[in-house]
Amino acid sequence: MKKETLHIIKVGGNIIDDDAKLDAFLHAFTALQGKKILVHGGGKLATSMADRLQIPQQMVNGRRITDKETLQVVTMVYAGLINKTIVARLQARSCHAIGLSGADGNVILAHKREGSGTDYGFAGDVDEVNRQLISTLLDQGLSIVMAPITHDARGQLLNTNADTIAQEMATALCTHYDVRLVFTFEKKGVLMDIADERSVIARIGPDAYTRLKAEQRIFAGMIPKLDNAFKAIAAGVSAVLLGRAEELEKLVAGETGTVITAS
Amino acid sequence: MKKETLHIIKVGGNIIDDDAKLDAFLHAFTALQGKKILVHGGGKLATSMADRLQIPQQMVNGRRITDKETLQVVTMVYAGLINKTIVARLQARSCHAIGLSGADGNVILAHKREGSGTDYGFAGDVDEVNRQLISTLLDQGLSIVMAPITHDARGQLLNTNADTIAQEMATALCTHYDVRLVFTFEKKGVLMDIADERSVIARIGPDAYTRLKAEQRIFAGMIPKLDNAFKAIAAGVSAVLLGRAEELEKLVAGETGTVITAS
Repeated sequence: MKKETLHIIKVGGNIIDDDAKLDAFLHAFTALQGKKILVHGGGKLATSMADRLQIPQQMVNGRRITDKETLQVVTMVYAGLINKTIVARLQARSCHAIGLSGADGNVILAHKREGSGTDYGFAGDVDEVNRQLISTLLDQGLSIVMAPITHDARGQLLNTNADTIAQEMATALCTHYDVRLVFTFEKKGVLMDIADERSVIARIGPDAYTRLKAEQRIFAGMIPKLDNAFKAIAAGVSAVLLGRAEELEKLVAGETGTVITAS
Repeated sequence: MKKETLHIIKVGGNIIDDDAKLDAFLHAFTALQGKKILVHGGGKLATSMADRLQIPQQMVNGRRITDKETLQVVTMVYAGLINKTIVARLQARSCHAIGLSGADGNVILAHKREGSGTDYGFAGDVDEVNRQLISTLLDQGLSIVMAPITHDARGQLLNTNADTIAQEMATALCTHYDVRLVFTFEKKGVLMDIADERSVIARIGPDAYTRLKAEQRIFAGMIPKLDNAFKAIAAGVSAVLLGRAEELEKLVAGETGTVITAS
């Protein structure tokens, strides 16, 4: 039986921080036919809110050290301000959106990251995605807007990387749906030369990725995102695509950006 | 046909701000059998967050003047921090909660309050409650946790009084459910003498309320809450009860607090 298509789109801070760009992106997201999930980040806004509240921020390997006060900030900014702003704007476009954190309906269960050598504080690694509730909501004609906040089912909220959430949702849902996972970010795609936007790698498989990584030719900041992308394609996600949010339509159609291949 | 019972419980800032009290309240809420909705405020926390962010707050007749920056604060605090904290703690108690704002799934449609003489800014008055989606979620075994943020379906989030949200939900849902609406607050019930906790009025109907109000014997801060209570009972809500959150179980059973009567 042919599985129904589900688009999972990750959008990052460079779009969220820019009103005009966000509107254009939400226009393109609304135009996507069928079932869809939007996963958003919002790190830049969280950092500026933490600054205003004089809560010092510390990043290790691009990940935020989430102490108790920082967890409050990211919960407010991600699950509150950004999530509800996006939902209201989608509703205005007649995209019937519902915003969730991982705690809502136990949609994403996680555990506090331990023993990695670095104490990331209240950072969560995903254990399980609640496929049944997500399917029920999608079947109601709802589009889900996911904030990168999870919980441990013991009352603790956790800060979880939005790329990872998009990958975990795609991986969990791909047995039931034909999942097309799109990571949008600042660049046109995965670049051979970070300084040259024309150097987009149109298609890349795991062997080439492993080799380029070993040769240190992949920009360090891209590695967690690409690790997530390859994890998803290996798990059976139908398509994994990377590129600029401004080109969402062409990106989804495979006409621009980078296509991740399973072999 | 006998309608199914739905409890709608409003909880205010005095409980939310106190960890131990909040835990005790969530324990009692979890113990309530059947379908249930929790509507929370959080004004005190919003005020202290606004102070930290140096955003001056202005109150008129107990209502917050919601300028653009204040709307961001209440969206963060209500729909983000408080809502998700409550949801995670309920999930920890195996109460399968989902947190929503009015924008989520267009659950509560409102319009910006205009022409009242006072410019309340981004304050919303409720137009419609999405009964169908609420029923669908309740039928999934979910308990709904409502933040007092609504939207106008044109992309604008709005700050809406939590007592009003509880009343509007109760009123909209009472054709389908046997709704029991409970307003919890600092006092044991409606008091004849604000200084004397023993002066609880056990039962009060619309005529007595109108008379006491005319005689200025109702504490001014209680009037919007009581107006909501009488609106709900007049609209066909089965029971409307007021009292202390610390006594939720007895309150729901009608063993303490004030019972609002339809005539």
